[in-house]
Amino acid sequence: MTTTLETRLNEVDLGAVGGLVEGITREPAKAHTTWAADVRWTGGFRSEARVRDFAPISSDEPAGLGGADGAPNPVEQLLAALGNCLAVGYAANATVAGIAIQELNIRLDGDIDLRAFLGLAEGHAGFSAIRAVVDLVADADPAAIEALHRRVAQSSPVGHTLTAPIAVSITAA
Amino acid sequence: MTTTLETRLNEVDLGAVGGLVEGITREPAKAHTTWAADVRWTGGFRSEARVRDFAPISSDEPAGLGGADGAPNPVEQLLAALGNCLAVGYAANATVAGIAIQELNIRLDGDIDLRAFLGLAEGHAGFSAIRAVVDLVADADPAAIEALHRRVAQSSPVGHTLTAPIAVSITAA
Repeated sequence: MTTTLETRLNEVDLGAVGGLVEGITREPAKAHTTWAADVRWTGGFRSEARVRDFAPISSDEPAGLGGADGAPNPVEQLLAALGNCLAVGYAANATVAGIAIQELNIRLDGDIDLRAFLGLAEGHAGFSAIRAVVDLVADADPAAIEALHRRVAQSSPVGHTLTAPIAVSITAA
Repeated sequence: MTTTLETRLNEVDLGAVGGLVEGITREPAKAHTTWAADVRWTGGFRSEARVRDFAPISSDEPAGLGGADGAPNPVEQLLAALGNCLAVGYAANATVAGIAIQELNIRLDGDIDLRAFLGLAEGHAGFSAIRAVVDLVADADPAAIEALHRRVAQSSPVGHTLTAPIAVSITAA
């Protein structure tokens, strides 16, 4: 029986990230990744999204929108995905910068005009704006914290997917 | 003891949706909604997103990206949110059109070049493209099914959030 003492900053495995960076530097095609999810409708406004072998992400709508209110709805899930993505960005970039994170909480909200979804108006049915307020407790000088915030905003995969217009094709099987 | 026989098409509560439409028609400000999520970092690349009082949506990264592979990652969660949103759109619009859905499965995937996230390149860190393939089994003539597909694509809140450039502000608390 062996005991391994690990003292990785922020519990982040920088070695794995470094290995990925080396692999992509040697073979750029490795940077091209594809991600997937499978959604199954289960009645009413309920559905389940399966990702790999994980427990499904359940979805429903509040009663005021005609649902049974059994789970977060899809636009709330989108905010959750953004916050979770920012958390990875803070953990990764703080670790590279040698900053220990003590606490990190992110509050997300965003506005939707329901008229387009309900067929009462043409046009944009999605969020008009999304706000993320980042409460980071970490031992570092203000300039390093400022650089960390900037770096995370500049490199968030979900953040960039939202701020850029993305081609979404919806086709029948 | 009373027994209520419900035969709501697709188990969708159109009355609730109709009530919302009426309320918004009378008082347009009711269409303006705000949605929220709270994310807490839990170490490494792990975090949890809380929406209202529901169980948190857990997040992690695969081992190859430096995570502990304990949950879907944020970009997979984004695809899940899109699929769950399309499922609501199909259920709502099929019900309005009088179409009974027998089965609905949606396969989503999308491509990401990891270089921007990893700091190996400037530019877009998000999905370059997202595809949703909709496998709908329903009793309706082809024109009605075609109109349903079109209507859902035209009114999806998550879909529109992805296809339009959204203002995302990230600020320190």
